[in-house]
Amino acid sequence: MKVGIIGVTGNAGAELARYLLKHPEFELAEVSGRSEAGKKLADVFPYLHQYDLTIEPEIGSADLFFSALPHKSSAEICGPLVKRGKKVVDLSADFRLSDRAVYEQTYEVTHPHPEMLETAVYGLPELRRPEVAQTRLVGNPGCYPTAAILALAPAICAGIASPKVIIDAKSGVSGAGRTPTMATNYIEINENTHAYSVAGHRHEPEIVQELDRLRPRGLKPIDTTFIPHLVPMTRGILANCYTPAIQHTSQAQVDELYREFYRDKPFVEVVNRPPETKWTYGNNMVYVMPHFHERSGNLVLMAVEDNLGKGAAGQAIQNANLMCGFPENLGLDTGAVYP
Amino acid sequence: MKVGIIGVTGNAGAELARYLLKHPEFELAEVSGRSEAGKKLADVFPYLHQYDLTIEPEIGSADLFFSALPHKSSAEICGPLVKRGKKVVDLSADFRLSDRAVYEQTYEVTHPHPEMLETAVYGLPELRRPEVAQTRLVGNPGCYPTAAILALAPAICAGIASPKVIIDAKSGVSGAGRTPTMATNYIEINENTHAYSVAGHRHEPEIVQELDRLRPRGLKPIDTTFIPHLVPMTRGILANCYTPAIQHTSQAQVDELYREFYRDKPFVEVVNRPPETKWTYGNNMVYVMPHFHERSGNLVLMAVEDNLGKGAAGQAIQNANLMCGFPENLGLDTGAVYP
Amino acid sequence: MKVGIIGVTGNAGAELARYLLKHPEFELAEVSGRSEAGKKLADVFPYLHQYDLTIEPEIGSADLFFSALPHKSSAEICGPLVKRGKKVVDLSADFRLSDRAVYEQTYEVTHPHPEMLETAVYGLPELRRPEVAQTRLVGNPGCYPTAAILALAPAICAGIASPKVIIDAKSGVSGAGRTPTMATNYIEINENTHAYSVAGHRHEPEIVQELDRLRPRGLKPIDTTFIPHLVPMTRGILANCYTPAIQHTSQAQVDELYREFYRDKPFVEVVNRPPETKWTYGNNMVYVMPHFHERSGNLVLMAVEDNLGKGAAGQAIQNANLMCGFPENLGLDTGAVYP
Amino acid sequence: MKVGIIGVTGNAGAELARYLLKHPEFELAEVSGRSEAGKKLADVFPYLHQYDLTIEPEIGSADLFFSALPHKSSAEICGPLVKRGKKVVDLSADFRLSDRAVYEQTYEVTHPHPEMLETAVYGLPELRRPEVAQTRLVGNPGCYPTAAILALAPAICAGIASPKVIIDAKSGVSGAGRTPTMATNYIEINENTHAYSVAGHRHEPEIVQELDRLRPRGLKPIDTTFIPHLVPMTRGILANCYTPAIQHTSQAQVDELYREFYRDKPFVEVVNRPPETKWTYGNNMVYVMPHFHERSGNLVLMAVEDNLGKGAAGQAIQNANLMCGFPENLGLDTGAVYP
Repeated sequence: MKVGIIGVTGNAGAELARYLLKHPEFELAEVSGRSEAGKKLADVFPYLHQYDLTIEPEIGSADLFFSALPHKSSAEICGPLVKRGKKVVDLSADFRLSDRAVYEQTYEVTHPHPEMLETAVYGLPELRRPEVAQTRLVGNPGCYPTAAILALAPAICAGIASPKVIIDAKSGVSGAGRTPTMATNYIEINENTHAYSVAGHRHEPEIVQELDRLRPRGLKPIDTTFIPHLVPMTRGILANCYTPAIQHTSQAQVDELYREFYRDKPFVEVVNRPPETKWTYGNNMVYVMPHFHERSGNLVLMAVEDNLGKGAAGQAIQNANLMCGFPENLGLDTGAVYP
Repeated sequence: MKVGIIGVTGNAGAELARYLLKHPEFELAEVSGRSEAGKKLADVFPYLHQYDLTIEPEIGSADLFFSALPHKSSAEICGPLVKRGKKVVDLSADFRLSDRAVYEQTYEVTHPHPEMLETAVYGLPELRRPEVAQTRLVGNPGCYPTAAILALAPAICAGIASPKVIIDAKSGVSGAGRTPTMATNYIEINENTHAYSVAGHRHEPEIVQELDRLRPRGLKPIDTTFIPHLVPMTRGILANCYTPAIQHTSQAQVDELYREFYRDKPFVEVVNRPPETKWTYGNNMVYVMPHFHERSGNLVLMAVEDNLGKGAAGQAIQNANLMCGFPENLGLDTGAVYP
Repeated sequence: MKVGIIGVTGNAGAELARYLLKHPEFELAEVSGRSEAGKKLADVFPYLHQYDLTIEPEIGSADLFFSALPHKSSAEICGPLVKRGKKVVDLSADFRLSDRAVYEQTYEVTHPHPEMLETAVYGLPELRRPEVAQTRLVGNPGCYPTAAILALAPAICAGIASPKVIIDAKSGVSGAGRTPTMATNYIEINENTHAYSVAGHRHEPEIVQELDRLRPRGLKPIDTTFIPHLVPMTRGILANCYTPAIQHTSQAQVDELYREFYRDKPFVEVVNRPPETKWTYGNNMVYVMPHFHERSGNLVLMAVEDNLGKGAAGQAIQNANLMCGFPENLGLDTGAVYP
Repeated sequence: MKVGIIGVTGNAGAELARYLLKHPEFELAEVSGRSEAGKKLADVFPYLHQYDLTIEPEIGSADLFFSALPHKSSAEICGPLVKRGKKVVDLSADFRLSDRAVYEQTYEVTHPHPEMLETAVYGLPELRRPEVAQTRLVGNPGCYPTAAILALAPAICAGIASPKVIIDAKSGVSGAGRTPTMATNYIEINENTHAYSVAGHRHEPEIVQELDRLRPRGLKPIDTTFIPHLVPMTRGILANCYTPAIQHTSQAQVDELYREFYRDKPFVEVVNRPPETKWTYGNNMVYVMPHFHERSGNLVLMAVEDNLGKGAAGQAIQNANLMCGFPENLGLDTGAVYP
């Protein structure tokens, strides 16, 4: 099946091209990217020398598209493609939030295609596999939400966790995109760690939306305190989630709960030692460690991922596989590059 | 005044030697270190070429000693020195915890000099300046406790913070010491972030001890959930502390509270943007940002430091200055090496 | 075909396991490693969770073996395997040098199986493909020699380069192995660059041996000044080779020469901008840039590789493919993990 | 004495401010920087919280100025200051090259004040101390030239080195300035090493100019092949220089030659093991190792420095000390921040 990447020159776009190098069913047939239009993909990214593709200003002939454009621009391009019958996985935020008002308040733009929000599916297959398999339009989750939701979902769903959750997340820098900024300059990041967006990060409404869908009847709405950090690495997210246990529980029960929840989920491994971001370097895995901190009665729920893998391009291909009826892990079962 | 460093070959010992290069009152007169005894200090550490000192197996003629030995060994050496009338700043854990039982349970050893615990002072000058100035024996605080306590102290002291605190701390690797281990090998740390000691870290009792001293009558005992992390950097600690506000408050009130608390404390700056560990690279500063997360009602209290500076050697010299009647910041008012 | 890894717990051994995860013909059937014998491979390396293999103290039933043991130990194990009819790719230095005396002087040990040196083939397929395809015993090249030889070979072979070559090579740290040492400790490597082994590195005789085979009649013997460096990264080697041009030449001629030499070599790309080590992160590629520095008349010949890829495990699988009659790039055509 | 920094918002400008924090004679009285004019220095750089200075659009009342502006802009500002009787240390390239034509060809601009080239002094005090002490205008050397010249000078001067030198230099990223670019983005630099400017770097004419002044009568003009590299670190330069010995020599003779040459030079240490860039982290030191590679007859001459220290701001203050009759090392005798 022919696929295209819209916005191939960003981090997520280029990572999609890397994954597609060895996908047995998807053939990367066209790529677009305005800033580098007219150049060969292999000239812009010499490590992708295997491709003989020219970056086009616009594309539209493939059967399925991945869009790695910024929000709003993405919906403007994806909307018409879906209407023409194409399948689309949109890696921007445009089709993640089902409530238009929340989207418009969070991103401070008018949604170009609010009429499509209803049919779009939030593409976190571990929670929404059947819906993903039925849709033509997936809003691919944000990097932080993927980790945070997968860390919290089993405990919220089972009703053992308080809805008041603290999420302290640490991210590598590639999540901030490929455009140079002072904040992502080497000399500012190296040997440095700090929080940012403490007053509210755009990914927070996704986390609330998805966890609220899971909470048992009677549980109060999810209330997050989400503090993201930049740590000096290129790839990787570690989300640590803290929430009081609201039922009597034990480490053994929590382990069992998590293992059961993620049984038959090929990309989530439940582990019993603190997971390391590098275990996922370059692939689509998530490692989750649920920890019951007995003295305080808190649950400490950790998840790691590659922010460009399960946090972006890997998950996009996982969604595309499901949308096309392929095995979920087709072309994705690669080892992490460790160390 | 002649000073000596016991255990100069570790990270804290060598950092003490660096700080002492330019101290106007302390003259580094002798250094010890069993593993490298007999060698020139400048041969072991070529960047300390200015010193013409031989590493001795044992020392004892100076007037004041810094001990950077491991716990237990440190008390065994420091005890007799204090009894001989010397001043001692012990960077190990041996004289930090005033309760012998807590110490022995935490470190799983018998304390060599329990009779001295009563006179030893926990050397966090921002909280205990008068006591430090009167003692001959200081237990220099751990790196994590220094950051966590300074982040939390004003809020706990004022009674606006719940005693149930979550501390999510991120540390560079030099805090783990200079001895090579698999966990501190470059290839394991680089491009990697993970938690460790989730079941309980040895620094936790110090945090509890000092915060409990500050809590207002009527507040329940401090109850910590402390999760330390290794991030890929050599120096720096960021401690993020989360606790519900238990009184009505506002960002302005919290700012005022913190500024007032740290007025006249030369090594603590209260800031209103997320502090960065690199702001303290190589010096004795702490930057604290108190944040009131209005929607959730949580206080998010952050502090950064250089774990070898305010978290170890810098603070040890600050304590020694006070013990000798010198200005607190003598020899310590250096800029951070940034970027 | 069933294959085994002898010494799976080192960096090269674990990297072999990662590559074999997705090899369509080789099935990893057994692994050995004395230090961790008895443990599950997936417990030692959680990122290799896909394997259900126990690390054995000794193995021997597969058809082909990769040995990632240290020198001498490796030949002791590999010798008998070859005699039993097994195919072996030895990643140690034991079967790289055809001259026993050079080996014994360089490695300061007695060779356990000197009688096998004659039949062993130096496994650099770009130069020795037919011999590799015929042998049962390959000495897999060292990481530095692979980069340096591929950078220099076309120019030496064509007689345009002086045999007096300077090789200034920069390496990531994983080449130094997985055992913790002071030299590979994070705090020593990070924010640091330095040369080492300036008086002579063990990889130098390999470089001389292979280039001497290529030099035209009449050219003096190869004479190297090889200075390796550690730079603060986990993976990657950049070898810069400097040598005076000894014939009239031009950039165009040098480019043509290199492109022609590496035509039909799937793992070598000739480029015309300075190649970056990260272009090869996690795969088996080499990028070579030949540069004619007109003013001085020097050739500046650069090559980059992943020291664990083409410099170790990737090349080992390339050799194994050839030994078994498979396409050279089977299971190896993966993209680099960039950025 | 009151001093000013023109262009305080770049890396060199900010580093000057850091050094000046503890200089006993120079008082930083005014700072300029167009992009941040009107802001407090301590708001732009929170780690410089000790200063209460506003960044001005223009300054001119101090007695001595450091200019850290880009080339051409710098001479435009510095020229008039010198004419008004001020002392100036210009960290740009504008007053380094005494030959106007070479300057204009290298930097592709017209020199704003060619009439001042004659009186300007190339500020490498180890070679030009008396001239620096007499001038009001110093052209502060480039970062690469400082390391390369100090590595080569003794051997060139003594006539034991061929004038055909190869310089393979490795630099941290802060030398590229503080303005964000794709090339200095964290994700491009981290885990990556590559050469750049292989066809000719602007620092090369400085190296040639200064070494040509030193070469003995009869030696041919200096002929450099200079290849700079970016390595993933913030600070530090290692310059490795390769040149054939043209007289019979030995390691002992070379050592003696270098020790003698740098006797009484407080910022150059001659060492006999490969020097490490981190030995100079944050200070003004240079470590030089001269190595005679006996088998090939080559000299391998290495020098390390902090590119923002001896390679920029530290050396600027060293020059200013000399221009003002202060001890050369006033305010500069600080230890390196290691590890």
